[in-house]
Amino acid sequence: MALDYDLVIVNGIVVTDDAISEVDIAIKGEQIASLGPRGSFSNDIAGRTIDAEGGYITPGGIDAHVHLEEPQLFGKGSSADTFETGTRSAICGGTTTIIAFAPQQRTEDSLLSTLEATHKKAEGKCYTDYSFHLLVSNPSDRALAEFSILREKGISSLKIYMTYAALQLNDGQILDILLAAREHGITTLIHAENNDLILWMTAQLEKRKMLAPRYHATSHPAMAEIEATYRAICLSEFIDVPILLVHISSPAAAAHIRSAQSRGLPVYAETCPQYLFLTKADLDKPGFEGAKCVCSPPPRENEQDQEGIWQGLEDGTFTVLSSDHCPFIYDDSETGKKTCVTAEYPEGQFKYIPNGCPGVETRLPLAMSAERLEIKRFVEVTTTNAAKLYGLYPRKGTLSAGQSDADLVIWYPSGKLGTFALTNGMLHHNVDYTPYEGKTLTQWPRYTILRGSVMWDRDGEGLVGKAGQGSFLHRDKSSLKGPLSSEPWDIRGF
Amino acid sequence: MALDYDLVIVNGIVVTDDAISEVDIAIKGEQIASLGPRGSFSNDIAGRTIDAEGGYITPGGIDAHVHLEEPQLFGKGSSADTFETGTRSAICGGTTTIIAFAPQQRTEDSLLSTLEATHKKAEGKCYTDYSFHLLVSNPSDRALAEFSILREKGISSLKIYMTYAALQLNDGQILDILLAAREHGITTLIHAENNDLILWMTAQLEKRKMLAPRYHATSHPAMAEIEATYRAICLSEFIDVPILLVHISSPAAAAHIRSAQSRGLPVYAETCPQYLFLTKADLDKPGFEGAKCVCSPPPRENEQDQEGIWQGLEDGTFTVLSSDHCPFIYDDSETGKKTCVTAEYPEGQFKYIPNGCPGVETRLPLAMSAERLEIKRFVEVTTTNAAKLYGLYPRKGTLSAGQSDADLVIWYPSGKLGTFALTNGMLHHNVDYTPYEGKTLTQWPRYTILRGSVMWDRDGEGLVGKAGQGSFLHRDKSSLKGPLSSEPWDIRGF
Amino acid sequence: MALDYDLVIVNGIVVTDDAISEVDIAIKGEQIASLGPRGSFSNDIAGRTIDAEGGYITPGGIDAHVHLEEPQLFGKGSSADTFETGTRSAICGGTTTIIAFAPQQRTEDSLLSTLEATHKKAEGKCYTDYSFHLLVSNPSDRALAEFSILREKGISSLKIYMTYAALQLNDGQILDILLAAREHGITTLIHAENNDLILWMTAQLEKRKMLAPRYHATSHPAMAEIEATYRAICLSEFIDVPILLVHISSPAAAAHIRSAQSRGLPVYAETCPQYLFLTKADLDKPGFEGAKCVCSPPPRENEQDQEGIWQGLEDGTFTVLSSDHCPFIYDDSETGKKTCVTAEYPEGQFKYIPNGCPGVETRLPLAMSAERLEIKRFVEVTTTNAAKLYGLYPRKGTLSAGQSDADLVIWYPSGKLGTFALTNGMLHHNVDYTPYEGKTLTQWPRYTILRGSVMWDRDGEGLVGKAGQGSFLHRDKSSLKGPLSSEPWDIRGF
Amino acid sequence: MALDYDLVIVNGIVVTDDAISEVDIAIKGEQIASLGPRGSFSNDIAGRTIDAEGGYITPGGIDAHVHLEEPQLFGKGSSADTFETGTRSAICGGTTTIIAFAPQQRTEDSLLSTLEATHKKAEGKCYTDYSFHLLVSNPSDRALAEFSILREKGISSLKIYMTYAALQLNDGQILDILLAAREHGITTLIHAENNDLILWMTAQLEKRKMLAPRYHATSHPAMAEIEATYRAICLSEFIDVPILLVHISSPAAAAHIRSAQSRGLPVYAETCPQYLFLTKADLDKPGFEGAKCVCSPPPRENEQDQEGIWQGLEDGTFTVLSSDHCPFIYDDSETGKKTCVTAEYPEGQFKYIPNGCPGVETRLPLAMSAERLEIKRFVEVTTTNAAKLYGLYPRKGTLSAGQSDADLVIWYPSGKLGTFALTNGMLHHNVDYTPYEGKTLTQWPRYTILRGSVMWDRDGEGLVGKAGQGSFLHRDKSSLKGPLSSEPWDIRGF
Repeated sequence: MALDYDLVIVNGIVVTDDAISEVDIAIKGEQIASLGPRGSFSNDIAGRTIDAEGGYITPGGIDAHVHLEEPQLFGKGSSADTFETGTRSAICGGTTTIIAFAPQQRTEDSLLSTLEATHKKAEGKCYTDYSFHLLVSNPSDRALAEFSILREKGISSLKIYMTYAALQLNDGQILDILLAAREHGITTLIHAENNDLILWMTAQLEKRKMLAPRYHATSHPAMAEIEATYRAICLSEFIDVPILLVHISSPAAAAHIRSAQSRGLPVYAETCPQYLFLTKADLDKPGFEGAKCVCSPPPRENEQDQEGIWQGLEDGTFTVLSSDHCPFIYDDSETGKKTCVTAEYPEGQFKYIPNGCPGVETRLPLAMSAERLEIKRFVEVTTTNAAKLYGLYPRKGTLSAGQSDADLVIWYPSGKLGTFALTNGMLHHNVDYTPYEGKTLTQWPRYTILRGSVMWDRDGEGLVGKAGQGSFLHRDKSSLKGPLSSEPWDIRGF
Repeated sequence: MALDYDLVIVNGIVVTDDAISEVDIAIKGEQIASLGPRGSFSNDIAGRTIDAEGGYITPGGIDAHVHLEEPQLFGKGSSADTFETGTRSAICGGTTTIIAFAPQQRTEDSLLSTLEATHKKAEGKCYTDYSFHLLVSNPSDRALAEFSILREKGISSLKIYMTYAALQLNDGQILDILLAAREHGITTLIHAENNDLILWMTAQLEKRKMLAPRYHATSHPAMAEIEATYRAICLSEFIDVPILLVHISSPAAAAHIRSAQSRGLPVYAETCPQYLFLTKADLDKPGFEGAKCVCSPPPRENEQDQEGIWQGLEDGTFTVLSSDHCPFIYDDSETGKKTCVTAEYPEGQFKYIPNGCPGVETRLPLAMSAERLEIKRFVEVTTTNAAKLYGLYPRKGTLSAGQSDADLVIWYPSGKLGTFALTNGMLHHNVDYTPYEGKTLTQWPRYTILRGSVMWDRDGEGLVGKAGQGSFLHRDKSSLKGPLSSEPWDIRGF
Repeated sequence: MALDYDLVIVNGIVVTDDAISEVDIAIKGEQIASLGPRGSFSNDIAGRTIDAEGGYITPGGIDAHVHLEEPQLFGKGSSADTFETGTRSAICGGTTTIIAFAPQQRTEDSLLSTLEATHKKAEGKCYTDYSFHLLVSNPSDRALAEFSILREKGISSLKIYMTYAALQLNDGQILDILLAAREHGITTLIHAENNDLILWMTAQLEKRKMLAPRYHATSHPAMAEIEATYRAICLSEFIDVPILLVHISSPAAAAHIRSAQSRGLPVYAETCPQYLFLTKADLDKPGFEGAKCVCSPPPRENEQDQEGIWQGLEDGTFTVLSSDHCPFIYDDSETGKKTCVTAEYPEGQFKYIPNGCPGVETRLPLAMSAERLEIKRFVEVTTTNAAKLYGLYPRKGTLSAGQSDADLVIWYPSGKLGTFALTNGMLHHNVDYTPYEGKTLTQWPRYTILRGSVMWDRDGEGLVGKAGQGSFLHRDKSSLKGPLSSEPWDIRGF
Repeated sequence: MALDYDLVIVNGIVVTDDAISEVDIAIKGEQIASLGPRGSFSNDIAGRTIDAEGGYITPGGIDAHVHLEEPQLFGKGSSADTFETGTRSAICGGTTTIIAFAPQQRTEDSLLSTLEATHKKAEGKCYTDYSFHLLVSNPSDRALAEFSILREKGISSLKIYMTYAALQLNDGQILDILLAAREHGITTLIHAENNDLILWMTAQLEKRKMLAPRYHATSHPAMAEIEATYRAICLSEFIDVPILLVHISSPAAAAHIRSAQSRGLPVYAETCPQYLFLTKADLDKPGFEGAKCVCSPPPRENEQDQEGIWQGLEDGTFTVLSSDHCPFIYDDSETGKKTCVTAEYPEGQFKYIPNGCPGVETRLPLAMSAERLEIKRFVEVTTTNAAKLYGLYPRKGTLSAGQSDADLVIWYPSGKLGTFALTNGMLHHNVDYTPYEGKTLTQWPRYTILRGSVMWDRDGEGLVGKAGQGSFLHRDKSSLKGPLSSEPWDIRGF
């Protein structure tokens, strides 16, 4: 007798971005086959049954901001995680889809070779499904002409930088990209910080010999983000094209975004756990510990800033909560010493510390344990909205019978885990620290299921999936609101 | 052989508030059983198959603001539609659920007898599913104490007025109601207009002998709505309790609502077709035609106002688009003459014209034909959000396999109907006019299906459902955002 | 030989609202005759010379909110200060002009008898120049018709209340007044608190037996002021007429005012020292001390609220800083006991404590000692703007040769006084306490000069002026921005 | 017998920024000696008496934005007016003080030689009093170090550009300047347009062969100004230093300024007649006429934009109304042909048309004839505020006895001139056109008086003053609000 279903999950509370339902789930092959009232799917029609015991079941997490196997960006230090170790860490933390970066070099004309090379790195290595954002650092005519090919190849987003010498584009180049992105239905991610202001502050600090890690935060004032965020909004409004502002850290920058949204503009925004759980004070930890929390933008002043960012997650200003997972290997491969450390600055000289922290595995547990977001909103910002914005919905990001992949996380029943401290030893990345060491948690994914396969079984054997089970996702264009006008952009409007 | 499904709908484009999918739908009994790729459900496993021919399929409309069989409110004129004629009109226009009012009389102490009496009027008469908002005009201690019983009886919303002599509550009474509503998880609908300002303007007009229907608009200036809207928001913020502001007509009132929402408050809002398709000029039509467009608040000045309301529908300020269906019989039953007409004022004296227009049947066709709202947003404001706000989701308001009732509308393929003019002859209400006479339409529901039964088949026999097929809906509390604090309201906070 | 000047003041720093000048001042008769560089006016051409020793010289203070000799308002307690004792206190604190109230009784039809009666109380008694605001509690047709006579009699302002049973007007009555005020160029002062909300909170408190003075603040929440402030702005915008919102205490109410001002509306605002120097905590002082700080609106929560009010003074939101001097005699004249005290509530039952504090003498010294306002802004809010708003400029409120009365205050050179504690013993009112007892001061008027006569000489004989030296001031209409339109108000605009 | 006064002006209505007074004026030497009631100064005590016949008398205009004798900026075309012809034009239009620019060349290190050279150009040539803003295009260490010397030499303001290849500073250079300006009490004027956006649009236009003068407006979209204005505000807020944003043309840029002002920041703004009286349509005039209206920023779209700028003048957003007088000689001195004209583009190629129009003489008559500003506000924006902002008050910008220079304009009694059309023939500049040719006027200065000397007597001999009567003005620092904090700027605050 053929079984009706391959996997049935009973007694869970199924949460999507718009409903909380006490229903059972039936999975057939890689898809959600049916949702039904308790008892709809009996044991004898299913290959395997999991009892969720009253725990929440959420769509698998989508982390749309993950740096893996990228080349040296800061002259010193390269990505700590490969596609294999990074997605391994992701799946153990409840994330079933990641979008990493395919970084074009300044010296390259084309984007396609970059894409090809990144495909090679990822193929057959991943524990999660995956895709790429093209990271454009040289918007040559050729690169712009390739946007249509990118779309054919399933890439519907790209990222640009307003800061970092090796990546920064000027406003004219940004306009070139936005105009082409508009034509091809591509979403542009923007790292918005005013580079001049950062360089000026860095020079001021150096003049005063203020070089310790904590001055990284001083060198990247909120104003640099606030100004550049507004400028990016202006440029996107001028071209009438959607953008996503990545890793917003300051409430005043969020206010610009909210104001743009209020005017009906397709301006989207992302924030990250480091702006919810860390502050500038973390950069001031003793020894090299401070250096480990260096990222850009930096964690902000105090709890009031964190509160502002939580507020933006709650009220819809932030579309997604991503990790910006970006750990570096600090050690020089030849000398074995930390490259940013000198005899004079044993805790590291801020200018030379690569910017970035790990976080792909801790994103969901931290946010869930914080019990701050209403649970439907948690689902919305950690998976549903990313699926919509990056062209994966409703295949990903929800649990819709007949339409969605069976990607899901089963959480522990409330209270079952008690409280426990996070340690780096629990994590599966290729990094020797977590900036959240010691944080108190109350939740962790009990099971992570990718397209019907159990990949992580915390109370069983732990990581049970294999590298290579994850597939490349051919993405469509965003299903969130696009340009206000459906006409081609035309200079005559001005 | 038992058939797997009772009804299959193929070749439609299924639209919910968050996705547009080219899938087929299988219905079993009264529920959506499954959604699947084209061809998933073959003819021989279903009782009946409907070919949507590429038309949109949306969840059945919910009209949460419908006045039926209400007693005389203005001394003259009573509700033109009964539960039977009103829901008949609704179903032919694609609405499968209505929420009408159970109006407490000032002289009554209790709400329960009102509820009982309204049940009696509706039972066995309806073509749509239905529920009631309690309309509270006397918030006696007894009435407040009955809120918990209302919830047990499936009523989770009530409505109050800040205007109309017979209904108006003062700010203290409103606070009493909001506090009790908060305690019992009840959503309060508020008609917000400043009564003093309206009376003052009316007196000014009378002093100048300006009495024609068009002066109804002058007597109800936007400022009356703007002020009272803000006041209602203040009172709800003070108690920390959700409210819905009904029939918002002025962009400046909408701006107050949007600002409250931006501050994270659970403030919801409704608008109606009359503020999208009519203006003050419609009150100035010759003869008694102007009188037929008298409603409160009145249609506003010009297209800029309409534009502002459309903008609010697009950007999320408005939670729902309801009809405020409220037609009156103008004729005196004894004399057979219009009660508001005198020899001196043959076109009616504005003060005596009952306030309200029909619209339950035209709501969806007008909004769909306007092609102004993105189709997912159309679904959101005409059904999904009402289901969430009034405790019916996901049974109503979406099309989720295993969870939703099979309430749906099949629309015509784009362009199939060409353009045609709306006439009152097409409608099924008990009213001799529509304020939208002559408006150009391009769409109408082709089929309306209620819990699996075809009720309306426009190209077949038209109305095929029967009175009484609609059931009372026991509603839960809102699943939209509630009070900011989960603690009981306490005076010590002030 | 006739002397050129009667009084010359040398070595002062003359401050007006727009300039700081190191010049000498020559006074002839009652007027400023000339300003000139140091040494312009030698001793032998002047009757008397005062050496300001480098201290500031400011135009004499105008306190436009002073309650004197008013009848019982709260059933219990009447005004503690007469025109004589109140203006005596004023002049010793640097105030040379006061505007008191002429309070119409509800039972009176006319305003003219009220004005007459108030003239009688004041005439020949005052140490300062003076005028009256008509306090309108019964806007009868007759009263409205008398506005033109008021203007002829030199009265260009009136005050109304949105709270207090004996005084409160409804919104319709307010519109009547505003319309008549617009026609006659009269400025309307409004006490904006939502009475219903206050009554409701009072009932909630009584139900819980919370009756101590500190609950006065709880019974008058900021929301009552915020709501009513916005409502008052709406009504004034509707009529297009200037208003002044008196004694604003809450930053959120100030934000409404600022927003109205940003839209170009002629909305003006006043705040008072009690909102800069007291908080709710002062109502919680032991024994009867808390009762002495009871005023309406109450001092707000904390320093953040105070900070918001300072901010409004600095940025121009507040037009004037007045005292709202309103002390009461608490003692029953027959029993000699405090009327609001019972055996059960020895510290007073909040509902029966008359609302108001003394402050006419401490207003300028407190504000000057706070060193918070830029000195030109200090002059602007304590005198210049009041002169402009109430039709006295440039006769009062500035020091313009040939145009201004010689009303001025000579302050001590910076640092000369050191620091000292304020005690009630220093004051000249008819009250046995000051709510600012013990506050640290660094400044006090050294001389107060009224129309060329030295009235107060702190280092000499102190009070040297006489009752009766002050005159009634015939006021013109405001010279600040008036209605946006110069056309008569017309219903056709709506 | 020595006369008491040299000049007496009777029967005028004296207007300052804060009062309108029907008083007579007595002048002795170069100063205002006294103001007095009608008849105070009889004929026999004065050398000369002028009867103003009921016309307004305003303080002489200050035009703080005038380009004179500047070197070639656009490769082609140099300043049309010298200090002599420019100030001649100014005095005939009622302006008694101008502030022109001393433009540093990029190749120069120092500012002092620039200042010296500009002094030489102006000395002995001017009909008005005058000063300079240093125009800094190379903020070298040496230049920054010279700021203290500038102050000693009476220069308290400088100007910088965010656009134009030859002048543009990057954000880091701007920060250097603002920090030094803060230290030395210098006000920085900023031309805020986003250069990248302008270059990008220009390239787009060239690609489409859109090169006519009207495309100048297209190439400088409002967004370029809006973005750069906000960026300039951010930089000034970061350093906490006052700035003045010059020639604001777009209401949305003005909204940023107003918002900054609302937050209490010392952000000031200027607008110019071209944004009140011209629109983009003026660039589309036939032949070379369009080219004559090319300026940057360009006149905006339509009357709604003009209205927004008027609104900003009325509500205080704009501190000053200057002319930005900047006419060019278009003809090549060798060929005698217009340098921006080719056979292919007979009406001029927009990219090569120098940016700027004449206006120093028409500024006051246009603004006065528009009868849009309340008269006190007219005085405030055309003279008083400039005097305060640029350190000339109360010597200039008001009419204060004993303090102010006798600089004033006597206007015609209302209606006396009827209406007449402006023609270039009436003007005294060295330019062969005015962009306002044909505008209807109702007012013109009847007399312009500079430090007691009649310079312009329209009904008499016209220009009666001589070149060289104007003097250099040693300016103090701004008396408007400065940095929020009086502490030195310190990196530790970030």
